[in-house]
Amino acid sequence: MRYDIAIIGSGPAGLSAAVNAKIRNKNFIIFGNKNLSTKIEKAPSIDNYLGLYGISGMDLKQHFVDHINSMDIEIDERKITNVYAMGDYFALASGSEMIEATTVIIAIGTDSAKSIEGEDKFLGRGVSYCATCDAPLYNGKEVCVLGYNKESIHEANFLNEIAAKTYFIPMRNTLKNDMSDIDDKVEIIENKPTEIQGEMLVNKLNFKDDSLPIDGVFIIKDSMSPKNLVPGLELDGEHIKVDANMKTNIAGLFACGDCVGRPYSYLKSAGQGLTAALNAVDYLAKKDREK
Amino acid sequence: MRYDIAIIGSGPAGLSAAVNAKIRNKNFIIFGNKNLSTKIEKAPSIDNYLGLYGISGMDLKQHFVDHINSMDIEIDERKITNVYAMGDYFALASGSEMIEATTVIIAIGTDSAKSIEGEDKFLGRGVSYCATCDAPLYNGKEVCVLGYNKESIHEANFLNEIAAKTYFIPMRNTLKNDMSDIDDKVEIIENKPTEIQGEMLVNKLNFKDDSLPIDGVFIIKDSMSPKNLVPGLELDGEHIKVDANMKTNIAGLFACGDCVGRPYSYLKSAGQGLTAALNAVDYLAKKDREK
Ligand SMILES: Cc1cc2nc3c(=O)[nH]c(=O)nc-3n(C[C@H](O)[C@H](O)[C@H](O)COP(=O)(O)OP(=O)(O)OC[C@H]3O[C@@H](n4cnc5c(N)ncnc54)[C@H](O)[C@@H]3O)c2cc1C
Ligand SMILES: Cc1cc2nc3c(=O)[nH]c(=O)nc-3n(C[C@H](O)[C@H](O)[C@H](O)COP(=O)(O)OP(=O)(O)OC[C@H]3O[C@@H](n4cnc5c(N)ncnc54)[C@H](O)[C@@H]3O)c2cc1C
Repeated sequence: MRYDIAIIGSGPAGLSAAVNAKIRNKNFIIFGNKNLSTKIEKAPSIDNYLGLYGISGMDLKQHFVDHINSMDIEIDERKITNVYAMGDYFALASGSEMIEATTVIIAIGTDSAKSIEGEDKFLGRGVSYCATCDAPLYNGKEVCVLGYNKESIHEANFLNEIAAKTYFIPMRNTLKNDMSDIDDKVEIIENKPTEIQGEMLVNKLNFKDDSLPIDGVFIIKDSMSPKNLVPGLELDGEHIKVDANMKTNIAGLFACGDCVGRPYSYLKSAGQGLTAALNAVDYLAKKDREK
Repeated sequence: MRYDIAIIGSGPAGLSAAVNAKIRNKNFIIFGNKNLSTKIEKAPSIDNYLGLYGISGMDLKQHFVDHINSMDIEIDERKITNVYAMGDYFALASGSEMIEATTVIIAIGTDSAKSIEGEDKFLGRGVSYCATCDAPLYNGKEVCVLGYNKESIHEANFLNEIAAKTYFIPMRNTLKNDMSDIDDKVEIIENKPTEIQGEMLVNKLNFKDDSLPIDGVFIIKDSMSPKNLVPGLELDGEHIKVDANMKTNIAGLFACGDCVGRPYSYLKSAGQGLTAALNAVDYLAKKDREK
């Protein structure tokens, strides 16, 4: 089965893309969280979403959930780890699973977390962004989770069932309140890593004056660098380069929301999600006519 | 008094720009209608404004009105007929009145009505887009109103108080229900004009097999061509050319919404209005630092 449109991300950009894909009767799938986006939930009070003045993030989330529920849009909770342009279509990898789609809309947001030295170099060779996807590779091995969000705690607990030993490093102070959820057997390290090292594969995590021998490093944050997600994607600084129609440098691949640039905001992201979806629909129609 | 930001248009694009100008504490003015936009009111049911599924145009309008009321944003109902780039600031003309602003955001929407032959040529020499602004010039003369919207009927009635003779041509079938509001003394012509003619000034309105001697032609539609509004503005087809930050070719002048291109939609327009306002704010800050 090949989808017309695969949308990656369930923030305002991805949701708005999904709403418009649905209105245009496309066969689509949207990947993300049923909780939508931590960036929605966490906002205390939002004044600049036109039509909903002074709304809390939790209430805005509820409006969005109601909207997609009314349209029977379901979010698929698989994390997409790679998108490969295959010429005529795209292959989306979620661990060892593959999903095919004729067009892809990237709406993954941004994560302000800087990448760690060695992260890009060892991606796929001991560095992973998704425990659910890659855990089986570390059966009986030693792994360390660098946790940036709540999800990372569950990922660590899950890894702990498979790996011989699981370490967890809380990378953000905001995680403090959730640390009680972590399994007793997971060892918590209160120190920030400086570099991921190895030969062919990762073998060491370095700290300022220390190091830890390790087989795998799981970096669990809300979104990964777009260039790690899609090989060959053209960037403009840290953002995905798009034109006014939200087209990237790869035909059939669109992007929208925070991942394409500032201002970082709900309304801009949602507006761009609509534009991306309608241009994906145009692309599909053109492809159909060419057949 | 010079405003930091002048916003022209009260559809979703202009309103969202105003909301963000207000949040950023700028001294701004927004021109448009207290009714916001006929394109909002008229929509039967809107499914793609994320967060407000299945809302009627009238209800969406009420959400927008509540939003700006909560923030004490007032719409100025003067029609802007010209925007002149003066180097360091902009001069906005509403008839003979002038308003000054350091930056301008154009959010005038689009009007699908084609222009009539001679319209551009005689603009300011017998062709006008605003009766309230230009009526005094036609004291004791003969004028014809080409009416595209409800407002045009009131404009014709107003002209009739000043001109020696006022003709009215309903340019759209949708006006039928409102024709009873027109003054008895205004003469209605049920025929579509083909060309505006003249020498230095307009002197004739042509029809397929007829013509009418006339001193002035008032074309009353929701929005005028951007190139008639702002001399020197670069277009891309019929739309205003902007970059991803909603900047036009003129420094300090921004544009957003339908007037910058498709897809024509509320959410895209509102998102772009936010982007335009925040970039106008950046422009002002940069100008301040350079002082
Ligand atoms: C505390 C706070 C307050 C804010 N207040 C405001 C405000 O008042 N007004 C305003 O306009 N903006 C505000 N913002 C900014 C706003 O939250 C963002 O601009 C907006 O959420 C961006 O939307 P997005 O859809 O681009 O991405 P996001 O909302 O970041 O959503 C991205 C989604 O994609 C998912 N995802 C990422 N990668 C993958 C993958 N590989 N596979 C599957 N899913 C993936 C993520 O889990 C996430 O759900 C605030 C942000 C924060 C943090
Ligand atoms: C019947 C109908 C149904 C629609 N349904 C949908 C839908 O379901 N979903 C969707 O997303 N979109 C829909 N649209 C499209 C949507 O209405 C437009 O895309 C949107 O209104 C554009 O917003 P805007 O702010 O760019 O301009 P507009 O809404 O056109 O507003 C422009 C405003 O500027 C004012 N203005 C213009 N020139 C001047 C001037 N010189 N001086 C002062 N004021 C000026 C105008 O009077 C007007 O108030 C619909 C449109 C119509 C007509």
